[in-house]
Amino acid sequence: MPSHWVLTFICVDKPGIVHAISGAILAANGNITESHQFSSADTGRFFMRLQIEATSARVDFESALAPIAAKYEMEWQLDEVGRKLRTLVLVSKAAHCLNDMLFRSRAGQLPVEIPAVFGNHPELGALAEFYGVPFEYHPIVDNGSKLAFEHLLRDYIKTADIELIVLARFMQILSPEFCAEFEGRIVNIHHSFLPGFKGANPYAQAHSRGVKLIGATAHFVTPDLDEGPIIEQNVVRVEHDDSKKRLVEIGQDVESRTLTQAVSWFAEHRVLLDGDRTIIFS
Amino acid sequence: MPSHWVLTFICVDKPGIVHAISGAILAANGNITESHQFSSADTGRFFMRLQIEATSARVDFESALAPIAAKYEMEWQLDEVGRKLRTLVLVSKAAHCLNDMLFRSRAGQLPVEIPAVFGNHPELGALAEFYGVPFEYHPIVDNGSKLAFEHLLRDYIKTADIELIVLARFMQILSPEFCAEFEGRIVNIHHSFLPGFKGANPYAQAHSRGVKLIGATAHFVTPDLDEGPIIEQNVVRVEHDDSKKRLVEIGQDVESRTLTQAVSWFAEHRVLLDGDRTIIFS
Amino acid sequence: MPSHWVLTFICVDKPGIVHAISGAILAANGNITESHQFSSADTGRFFMRLQIEATSARVDFESALAPIAAKYEMEWQLDEVGRKLRTLVLVSKAAHCLNDMLFRSRAGQLPVEIPAVFGNHPELGALAEFYGVPFEYHPIVDNGSKLAFEHLLRDYIKTADIELIVLARFMQILSPEFCAEFEGRIVNIHHSFLPGFKGANPYAQAHSRGVKLIGATAHFVTPDLDEGPIIEQNVVRVEHDDSKKRLVEIGQDVESRTLTQAVSWFAEHRVLLDGDRTIIFS
Amino acid sequence: MPSHWVLTFICVDKPGIVHAISGAILAANGNITESHQFSSADTGRFFMRLQIEATSARVDFESALAPIAAKYEMEWQLDEVGRKLRTLVLVSKAAHCLNDMLFRSRAGQLPVEIPAVFGNHPELGALAEFYGVPFEYHPIVDNGSKLAFEHLLRDYIKTADIELIVLARFMQILSPEFCAEFEGRIVNIHHSFLPGFKGANPYAQAHSRGVKLIGATAHFVTPDLDEGPIIEQNVVRVEHDDSKKRLVEIGQDVESRTLTQAVSWFAEHRVLLDGDRTIIFS
Repeated sequence: MPSHWVLTFICVDKPGIVHAISGAILAANGNITESHQFSSADTGRFFMRLQIEATSARVDFESALAPIAAKYEMEWQLDEVGRKLRTLVLVSKAAHCLNDMLFRSRAGQLPVEIPAVFGNHPELGALAEFYGVPFEYHPIVDNGSKLAFEHLLRDYIKTADIELIVLARFMQILSPEFCAEFEGRIVNIHHSFLPGFKGANPYAQAHSRGVKLIGATAHFVTPDLDEGPIIEQNVVRVEHDDSKKRLVEIGQDVESRTLTQAVSWFAEHRVLLDGDRTIIFS
Repeated sequence: MPSHWVLTFICVDKPGIVHAISGAILAANGNITESHQFSSADTGRFFMRLQIEATSARVDFESALAPIAAKYEMEWQLDEVGRKLRTLVLVSKAAHCLNDMLFRSRAGQLPVEIPAVFGNHPELGALAEFYGVPFEYHPIVDNGSKLAFEHLLRDYIKTADIELIVLARFMQILSPEFCAEFEGRIVNIHHSFLPGFKGANPYAQAHSRGVKLIGATAHFVTPDLDEGPIIEQNVVRVEHDDSKKRLVEIGQDVESRTLTQAVSWFAEHRVLLDGDRTIIFS
Repeated sequence: MPSHWVLTFICVDKPGIVHAISGAILAANGNITESHQFSSADTGRFFMRLQIEATSARVDFESALAPIAAKYEMEWQLDEVGRKLRTLVLVSKAAHCLNDMLFRSRAGQLPVEIPAVFGNHPELGALAEFYGVPFEYHPIVDNGSKLAFEHLLRDYIKTADIELIVLARFMQILSPEFCAEFEGRIVNIHHSFLPGFKGANPYAQAHSRGVKLIGATAHFVTPDLDEGPIIEQNVVRVEHDDSKKRLVEIGQDVESRTLTQAVSWFAEHRVLLDGDRTIIFS
Repeated sequence: MPSHWVLTFICVDKPGIVHAISGAILAANGNITESHQFSSADTGRFFMRLQIEATSARVDFESALAPIAAKYEMEWQLDEVGRKLRTLVLVSKAAHCLNDMLFRSRAGQLPVEIPAVFGNHPELGALAEFYGVPFEYHPIVDNGSKLAFEHLLRDYIKTADIELIVLARFMQILSPEFCAEFEGRIVNIHHSFLPGFKGANPYAQAHSRGVKLIGATAHFVTPDLDEGPIIEQNVVRVEHDDSKKRLVEIGQDVESRTLTQAVSWFAEHRVLLDGDRTIIFS
């Protein structure tokens, strides 16, 4: 029974890597069906993502790859193509991003499995439950309840084997400690074209400044607010007669689309980190 | 012999304006062929642009319009459709924006007449002259030569009836006094998606920050650097493997396109100012 | 109590129309807040859409407008801004377009009221009911059941005051008689960039032809299949390594977006017909 | 002295290709700096493009690669990165595409060397000569002069080592024999979004059909008119009030941009053929 594997790795760039890794794959009776690589002139690192068709078991692959990985000091990851990533979604009141993720996830277009949605407001419970996803309401009203929430999050992430945390218009700032602990595993949607308008109310800023394009940015969350590596960005054209309300609506569309795209790439192991920049093997 | 007129005006918004102005046009035997209007909720002002087919002479139009304009305290402007706007282009070394403007101007796609190109470097002389446009080389090496240049500019603008000054990648900052004096008549192309990356070297900033879109902004020049009202913006998608050199090339395309679009709208009297925002009647 | 009205009309183009109509509006104490007009060089007709703020009742407006409408032989329509258009949605099995319409309708972003969804398959019942919309399952298996369905549709449209019928990936061809009877009131989403690939399976055609963009077209339904006036079109870039399955997913996004946009414009009376072309006052 | 090579090859897909080729590169002291591959599910073929940094001479590379190429029956090509492709441009009267190519070629953004421009009208001679490119005027008035022209073309292509022929709005149809002889080496810009509107006057067709997007398609020329493999396509949004003249202008922009992009990819060996589809390794 053939299966498909996705292998990603990062190491210092030097000659012979592709030959070595392709040799290990061949030795494990694998056939490379998709391949992307990138040599970073900025950091001297080499990034690769391979999809491999094979009849071998995971353990055979790992045995074949391990010596190469050790020799080149690779950070590497082997996963089954199409396995659904266990994803926790945090929300507040705005439904558009959650709706898009749940709809596509059920439609088989977004390879994630969402075991729960946590909200600091109760409004989105019905939507989650329509899609058969348990919803937990965790109000955050002060520093104490936020710390309690983060404590509970840590436990849940561990117990439920959560691989990705998505902030789908979650209007709370997580603590720097929490962000640092899960760096590279939390994706946020920022309701602006970063680094354009940071902070709150970017649509009002965009309106008063008369910009002709508004956008959204999906990025990794780091302790440094609104400054994590950018995964995806989109913009939409607006006109002088678009009201602030209309800018918000247009913005929400582009937010949903951008966040879902970023989550999809992440779930397929297409997003690698090169310092403050992302490598997207799409 | 019928001719076509373009009428633009701005006044305080109140009932009856459209009826009054359309009455005056009818009285002058004009037929409205194109009409745009906008009521600004922000400033309470009313903006209108009309194209009118008529056999009447300019003087007849003006007589019919004058009382209405006085009654509603309009700032107004009447021009012939298709008349080429007298445009001075300032350049340094980069050719892409100048090339685009000259090519389209000759092809009849950009309703401007360019009596001269001024450069603070000599490089673009040959290009201007290929299109039959006189080129003047005015080196700027210190504050003194810049003041002398601005002095010469003022004289030329007056003598040559210049209506629009285009900074086509002109790498000099004009003095606040000069900018204030010609406010609303100087258009600049900023090599970034404002208000994203201000200042110099935005492509290097964009590269190091790993943005997924780069853009350009055409805006009016005001004494406040990089902050004038935005006329047009465009973005183009970039990838992690686009080098800084490639970002510059992509950026130049979008700069040319954006600047030429802005100049075209301005020349057709499609750009009106509502405080810090532009109204674009395209 | 001030209210907002939207007035649209079509008539033969001649001087004085704007003056006359703005006079009637003024007489009824209305203030024009938004205005679009278009003179068709192809058909010699004049199209206008106005939004008017007024304290007058509908009957006062109608009295003031009626003589002008009669004089210029206008087809005209007066509606309240924001009134939700009564919209019937027909579906088969594909959920993406229906989901988008229901979500936006509930979010207040699509000014339609959907009293029912009719499906020729039962699958989308749960989705409709989650949004509180009654779903009726009407299987169509042969010509007889199709005629019965159209008979039932006619009755429902009449009884339920349906103003717009949306074919949201409804995989049945309505009879020419039905299409003719409701011409200008049925909107379909075609899963291609018309007039590119007509007929079935455009994504397979697109794949085999190696196109670099795929699109969707929202259009009015006429007896002439896939040939009605186009309301909106969008495209998305695709690559050589996008599988047919992936093309379908990308296509569904652009279908939803395009159909919802067309319905939104229609519901706001922004779509007028000029022969085989649409005028979009957006 | 290190140099950079670009290697492209096509063969039947089977396990071990990447390992074998990377081994040969390693043996020749090369380091892979850029790599793209694609396995075609449609034709069972494998496509690869590699950029390689090396100090070895061409002959060393060829010796190392030859046995692998023979074993896997590869069609392969080795070129120096950045070498300018010898490109002949055929034009009629429209200047926009030629202007874009010449400008970018001189600016170092398009890796082609244009030894001549041939026109069947004399109009574009001055433009070519401004860029220092010899222009030859070859009128085509009947079948005889067309055959003579093709005869002359064949000679020139041979004598001048022409690698690519670009039809930059060349309004003549080359004979099926000529097209077949140079298949895969002639690129045309079609002034429409294929397979939308074939044949002449697509902008008039687009206008009368009221489409909302117009586009351009760069494709290989085959004996089957307007049907060769598509290299690149772009579209631009248009409105109901864009005149036919304006559609033409908008169309010309997108034509230039699309053709230049296609030529650029071709010149960098980024375009491979998989039956009727192109593989674009951009």
